[in-house]
Amino acid sequence: MSTQTRGSLREGEVTVVAPEQSDAGLFFIGAIHTPFAQSRDCPRQGDRDHGPVCRIEVNEPWRAALKGLADHSHAQILYWMHLARRDLVLQSPRSNGETTGTFAIRSPNRPNPVSSSLVAILEVGADHVLVRGLDCVDGTPLIDIKPERCPEAPHPKGA
Amino acid sequence: MSTQTRGSLREGEVTVVAPEQSDAGLFFIGAIHTPFAQSRDCPRQGDRDHGPVCRIEVNEPWRAALKGLADHSHAQILYWMHLARRDLVLQSPRSNGETTGTFAIRSPNRPNPVSSSLVAILEVGADHVLVRGLDCVDGTPLIDIKPERCPEAPHPKGA
Repeated sequence: MSTQTRGSLREGEVTVVAPEQSDAGLFFIGAIHTPFAQSRDCPRQGDRDHGPVCRIEVNEPWRAALKGLADHSHAQILYWMHLARRDLVLQSPRSNGETTGTFAIRSPNRPNPVSSSLVAILEVGADHVLVRGLDCVDGTPLIDIKPERCPEAPHPKGA
Repeated sequence: MSTQTRGSLREGEVTVVAPEQSDAGLFFIGAIHTPFAQSRDCPRQGDRDHGPVCRIEVNEPWRAALKGLADHSHAQILYWMHLARRDLVLQSPRSNGETTGTFAIRSPNRPNPVSSSLVAILEVGADHVLVRGLDCVDGTPLIDIKPERCPEAPHPKGA
């Protein structure tokens, strides 16, 4: 797996040479469908109370694993930010030359661009889940669905 | 990447044939050191108020990305459950033959065994972070560190 180098650098941002080999492999177990066609359309963070309904499609052979999810009101969704760059260690989110470490912000650009969002579950079907609270681009690969037990908390940003 | 098939099956549990090829690769960016030498030593979930102090070692070239993390009191840690099996779709956590879908529980055994824990940050060094709240086995590979903004919430279980 080669390092993704999409997106341009802002003043002060620092990249490293990421490893050429990966250490573990992810399966894309489905895809997330949102109204956000491009990155620039995505909200800064998902809104699980008032955000648009998004459809999480789950592929075979994983659909049987949805059994029981409908008993939960909320879920944590892990997904792969396939458009992110993975070589940034210092970022300038405000584009003002002031930099912050990648591990001190929730930017999608990080060594392992796995995002985590807390969503409200609206419907669980045989091959899909309808939720509110996602902020990712349409077609984002799905990595995991976990039941979530802290729905009262402010929801984390999408990365 | 072949499917891991560690651990024995309980009554009623169902496995599938996982894909032979992975779709994306993860870098292990460090390692988590805990007092839990084996899986059976791990608590059911981490305790970020009273749990033991754990040391997250960050490898190069990623250490610069820790800049600014000390400004945060809490973090979300993503890590790779390297001992998990990845082919279970129905699991019987109570070993009583009653099954629940993998996506309806937070077991480490899942198609992509990426765990997520909310921890309290005690210290950020040049190459490490000391935290409370982890429940994983000593030597667990680190995937990501993200600042977390909902410290008042009940902390999610370790998977």
